[in-house]
Amino acid sequence: MQRKSFEGMRCPIARSLERVGEWWSMLILRDAFNGLTRFDEFQRHLGIAPNMLARRLATLVDSGLLERRRYSERPPRDEYVLTERGRDFHDVLLALLSFGNRHFAPEGESVVIVDSVTGVRADPVLVDRRSGRPLATSDFKLAAGPGATRATSTRRPNPATRVTGAARVRAQRARA
Amino acid sequence: MQRKSFEGMRCPIARSLERVGEWWSMLILRDAFNGLTRFDEFQRHLGIAPNMLARRLATLVDSGLLERRRYSERPPRDEYVLTERGRDFHDVLLALLSFGNRHFAPEGESVVIVDSVTGVRADPVLVDRRSGRPLATSDFKLAAGPGATRATSTRRPNPATRVTGAARVRAQRARA
Repeated sequence: MQRKSFEGMRCPIARSLERVGEWWSMLILRDAFNGLTRFDEFQRHLGIAPNMLARRLATLVDSGLLERRRYSERPPRDEYVLTERGRDFHDVLLALLSFGNRHFAPEGESVVIVDSVTGVRADPVLVDRRSGRPLATSDFKLAAGPGATRATSTRRPNPATRVTGAARVRAQRARA
Repeated sequence: MQRKSFEGMRCPIARSLERVGEWWSMLILRDAFNGLTRFDEFQRHLGIAPNMLARRLATLVDSGLLERRRYSERPPRDEYVLTERGRDFHDVLLALLSFGNRHFAPEGESVVIVDSVTGVRADPVLVDRRSGRPLATSDFKLAAGPGATRATSTRRPNPATRVTGAARVRAQRARA
């Protein structure tokens, strides 16, 4: 690949984009969620060049998002189905869909997320599963995780670690 | 641009990717969320070629995700800040971050989302704002919206429309 890779970066966003950030890749995943599995189905639906589609599918298989399965021996034909990891990408696609609906649908929304039974429209928001609080607020922030470099740990101290540190000091004082 | 554009597609995912799907674009938005505003800051942090960075910033400004602001007249210097639309992209980036953490952090997570006060880790999930139910389940599905083509409306009928249709038939019968 000509372009610089994001692989060396530790950022989890860069790591994700390294696997799905190529032009076409997310639309292939979208189509896989919509039930497409075969090379010619993807090609017809996307209007993508065959060599490009083959490269993108190979990357998605290599990254463990799609699985290649032989469905015909004569002639040899494979299909591509979402793995568990691939299905776990659903939230990203729905967040992109929702963003597109809010900002780039001047003629009205083409596709919306609705309750399967009632058809009532959903209003997508990313929250913390336990508390239900929206994440894109000042209630939450980014902090260094267990695999952080020292630079990241310094730049993004984790409040929990600070609490633990204070608790340790108090414990030491109590022992003294 | 050499590659085929997604602009003609009505899908809101394609419409979003048309604006943010180029290599580097989402990392620039990520850095903008992290407080970077100046050309040389982005360039240093990303290690991106200046002409490439200039192109990506111009696209993000054209799409209304970033705003260019002059901060120095002599020499003339601009900075790039997130617009309201740009800030609305936060959920997509956090969903990508969370996906990367779950799947591509073999040495441990580098950055995590935590409660700003307690430091307790958040577990991100995309839900319907009103009901709090996760969207990536069979409880929800995609349906044709008001701007759908006839083909999409046929392929993705909206349960609400069906209910309305049935209600209309009942109402007509009651009148007859």
